[in-house]
Amino acid sequence: MFSDTLRHNVQSLRGLKTRMLDTDFLLTWEKSHDELAATVLAAEILKELHRERISTRVFDGGLAISIFRDKSTRTRFSFAMAASMLGLSLAELDEEKSQIAHGETVRETANMISFFTEIIGIRDDMFLGEGNKYMKEVASAVTEGAEKGVLHRRPSLVNLQCDIDHPTQAMADLVHLMDRFGSFDGLRGKKLAMTWAYSPSYGKPLSVPQGIIGLMTRFGMKVTLAHPEGYGLIPEVAEIAAKNAAQSGGSFKKVATMEEAFKGADVVYPKSWAPYGVMQRRTKLLKEGNKPGLVELEKECLANNAKYRSWECNEEKMKLTKKGEALYMHCLPADISGVSCAQGEVSKGVFEKYRIETYREAGNKPFVIAAMMLLSRFVDPVTAIERLGKSSK
Amino acid sequence: MFSDTLRHNVQSLRGLKTRMLDTDFLLTWEKSHDELAATVLAAEILKELHRERISTRVFDGGLAISIFRDKSTRTRFSFAMAASMLGLSLAELDEEKSQIAHGETVRETANMISFFTEIIGIRDDMFLGEGNKYMKEVASAVTEGAEKGVLHRRPSLVNLQCDIDHPTQAMADLVHLMDRFGSFDGLRGKKLAMTWAYSPSYGKPLSVPQGIIGLMTRFGMKVTLAHPEGYGLIPEVAEIAAKNAAQSGGSFKKVATMEEAFKGADVVYPKSWAPYGVMQRRTKLLKEGNKPGLVELEKECLANNAKYRSWECNEEKMKLTKKGEALYMHCLPADISGVSCAQGEVSKGVFEKYRIETYREAGNKPFVIAAMMLLSRFVDPVTAIERLGKSSK
Amino acid sequence: MFSDTLRHNVQSLRGLKTRMLDTDFLLTWEKSHDELAATVLAAEILKELHRERISTRVFDGGLAISIFRDKSTRTRFSFAMAASMLGLSLAELDEEKSQIAHGETVRETANMISFFTEIIGIRDDMFLGEGNKYMKEVASAVTEGAEKGVLHRRPSLVNLQCDIDHPTQAMADLVHLMDRFGSFDGLRGKKLAMTWAYSPSYGKPLSVPQGIIGLMTRFGMKVTLAHPEGYGLIPEVAEIAAKNAAQSGGSFKKVATMEEAFKGADVVYPKSWAPYGVMQRRTKLLKEGNKPGLVELEKECLANNAKYRSWECNEEKMKLTKKGEALYMHCLPADISGVSCAQGEVSKGVFEKYRIETYREAGNKPFVIAAMMLLSRFVDPVTAIERLGKSSK
Repeated sequence: MFSDTLRHNVQSLRGLKTRMLDTDFLLTWEKSHDELAATVLAAEILKELHRERISTRVFDGGLAISIFRDKSTRTRFSFAMAASMLGLSLAELDEEKSQIAHGETVRETANMISFFTEIIGIRDDMFLGEGNKYMKEVASAVTEGAEKGVLHRRPSLVNLQCDIDHPTQAMADLVHLMDRFGSFDGLRGKKLAMTWAYSPSYGKPLSVPQGIIGLMTRFGMKVTLAHPEGYGLIPEVAEIAAKNAAQSGGSFKKVATMEEAFKGADVVYPKSWAPYGVMQRRTKLLKEGNKPGLVELEKECLANNAKYRSWECNEEKMKLTKKGEALYMHCLPADISGVSCAQGEVSKGVFEKYRIETYREAGNKPFVIAAMMLLSRFVDPVTAIERLGKSSK
Repeated sequence: MFSDTLRHNVQSLRGLKTRMLDTDFLLTWEKSHDELAATVLAAEILKELHRERISTRVFDGGLAISIFRDKSTRTRFSFAMAASMLGLSLAELDEEKSQIAHGETVRETANMISFFTEIIGIRDDMFLGEGNKYMKEVASAVTEGAEKGVLHRRPSLVNLQCDIDHPTQAMADLVHLMDRFGSFDGLRGKKLAMTWAYSPSYGKPLSVPQGIIGLMTRFGMKVTLAHPEGYGLIPEVAEIAAKNAAQSGGSFKKVATMEEAFKGADVVYPKSWAPYGVMQRRTKLLKEGNKPGLVELEKECLANNAKYRSWECNEEKMKLTKKGEALYMHCLPADISGVSCAQGEVSKGVFEKYRIETYREAGNKPFVIAAMMLLSRFVDPVTAIERLGKSSK
Repeated sequence: MFSDTLRHNVQSLRGLKTRMLDTDFLLTWEKSHDELAATVLAAEILKELHRERISTRVFDGGLAISIFRDKSTRTRFSFAMAASMLGLSLAELDEEKSQIAHGETVRETANMISFFTEIIGIRDDMFLGEGNKYMKEVASAVTEGAEKGVLHRRPSLVNLQCDIDHPTQAMADLVHLMDRFGSFDGLRGKKLAMTWAYSPSYGKPLSVPQGIIGLMTRFGMKVTLAHPEGYGLIPEVAEIAAKNAAQSGGSFKKVATMEEAFKGADVVYPKSWAPYGVMQRRTKLLKEGNKPGLVELEKECLANNAKYRSWECNEEKMKLTKKGEALYMHCLPADISGVSCAQGEVSKGVFEKYRIETYREAGNKPFVIAAMMLLSRFVDPVTAIERLGKSSK
């Protein structure tokens, strides 16, 4: 038996117009407003079912395969949790243990791992111009496999972070904002500052800031992007953000300082990333296997980064935000000054004040991924959810 | 409710006389004709159930453990899929993470991993004279464990490729042939060419060609083996193939060229392998840890291989086959000329023509492994299958 | 339908007074007598259910996460089996594949992996003063997470071996002793010799001998500890053993030779460990990354060890035990003279005589771990068990 909240959310989900069956979740801007809303609602429903200890096992077998081409803790475990939540078996494709290095083509491997597979989750965020391209290759391979009868059913892909977007993160962040502001309507006109922040490391992907400006502009938010000169994002993504804002009645603008972005902000998201131009050079050097070039580039970048040490989210800057009480967000792990590094993205005091909030933010991710799985695999996901309520008597 | 095809296959399965409960699947020639037929039928049934989206979860817990002593993608995932299909939990024994290196004996470890284990899958194909031997040691250890009450029940072993046979591959290939020729009767008299092919690498196991000649001669096929001088298989296996052919009314002969083998063939299986004699020397060097010796051997072998560059399956040779339209088979990944290497086992054109067919061939493997699991663990596997039809309403 | 034995054990379990819901199992001496008895009984019940092939799947999703900071085979697989037995999905936190190395704090990671997690199993036994401390940090992090609403429910921790105790081993050993002596009452007055034994390696953890003296003194056993001078255990644990013995009506004393300890013993547990003082120095060197120091220490220790080659459990010494027929116990793998090393903890003959017994001893571990999981996650574990009997009709 479901609670009133649950019944209400299930009804709302039923009301949405979506076409997600057998599709992939690669970039949020490839999804309609209703599809994003459905993902949020399904995540909220699964979260509530877990809170009420109602089983969410809708599958009775099937694999969820993850391919991680970069390190990961929270996304890796979020994916594992999502699989367990729905009743899928987890299998990781460890490219070192496979014969992939020995000349297998992507299209062959993609089919080989898909005969009994519902979901393929991929993280490929190291090389600019590569991650999303690789995912599309896998997607096209399994499409061919299904069309030619190799696969009984084409698995659905979930982007676990690429060079362009990090949709499971951005969607988890959206659920967090919904929790803060109560509803999609509550997001309208709210000011979000997505700003670069200093870090003693270099080469962090652009996908989080790109994911945030690409998604939050869909819901009428006033999104401000701030970064030092030369730290721009992929130009096309900034264009998408501008277009989204125009359509949703929000706004998207770029400013030159963290301070300016923070002024009157309801939400701040200060995070380090590598300059677009540097990522392009880095991708080239990595492909060439040019180690001295990479060392040289790192040195140059860290020296350049060091000029922007003042881009730290601290108590002083937080005072500039709405009533000094903006919501601080981060995808974690943050570079915390005096904790995980000498000087970093955020002061110890500000992080500690919002630490538990950032954990809650992260806690949405397993449910968001499970929602993506559910919506892409069931002809009628709402009925599948309602069945859970019945069997829990 | 089952379809007519399903009901028919289930009935056929019930009609077979098998004694597979609690047994291992190590070499196909240790299995009776009915047992091989039962494995094929059970695989077809499980495949059809999956196609019709009927759950095949017959277990409610229990481990399927895999031990990979060599790299693997498709067999690794096929095993994982088979486990998930039937409701078993997968666990891989990573010998590097275990204390095995520190003096544990095989018989101890075999028991330690088996207290709640239904299936142990093993790949051990690197050393001639070792893989099958190791599997028998594990088998004998768990037999002792069960007899002495250490284990409530002895797990069943599945050979995921050893030095002698690769039964999950050969059985998947058999299912593929059944799909092509309609029935076991359809296989009678069909000509299959198992031939060596050139590869720029060296040291590939003998288990695939051995598995093919050892299995397909059971069903009245006319099997021809072709390889350059010095590239013979284990002599005992060739003897088994000859004996099988005599019993089944098929034939087994060796010829000296790919062309001769291809003449009038219904099926061709061109694949590289290392010469038996080289594998013997290699095994000795590997055991001694003789690295310079291995480098020297590799150099010698590659030079020798290079003499046989013309052993490529190409359009010209395919014209020699029955109506120029023989079925091309490969266990994948193939060395494709101009794709995965400069010159290899198969021309780009021939491979591309049959690429999707080879994917389908590979797609039988998860179902074949699941069939082996099912038949060795259930007192009455047919009833276990029928129960699935009922619960799917 | 349950057998009489099962029904009797379930009734006994119902009669015990325990408060284990949502607690951790870190040290046996933090548990009450009834809680230890409940763990033994629940393990016996799960074992019996498995023997009778009754499903024990009480969960319908949820993760069991293991963190291994040291090598492991049997505990790793016991944990995997326990998870499968109850219906949990297994996930291993591989610290090399995670971002943990990059400045994540324990409290953050602990929460990140716990959103859908029932159980966290941890092995951390390399550094004296560290393992138990680390587990408490994780425990306190998830307590905070649950209190602050980050986690819907706090996962329970299971100590898979730390620097102080190895409770899953000691409890499996206790089940083994119960099987030998029939009941808790049967343990009263029985003499157990926990003695050091020679090994050609060095640096083995102290947790097994500490776990044994800390646990078996709870049940009125007469526990004797023997080791060469300088090979003492953590002093506080010896004090706990003495206190336990005083309370339970057993005894705890230290003697200077294996022979003395064996005299009249009902049970002998000869096993190598590193001297406490050496472990303290080793921990310091490991933390400093002082490799030459470690090499020097190892040399010194092995030289010192060599003085005690005569501390081998052999036929001669076994004759000193009660009727020459004491039960030989070992946590495995044992250093067996002439088998896994030239000269070790136990002679070939003695080990072979008890080999199958030691396998049975080890076979309790998956059921003990599953019992710990069951008792810490269910409000009413007895009813959860009884439900299994019903659904098995």
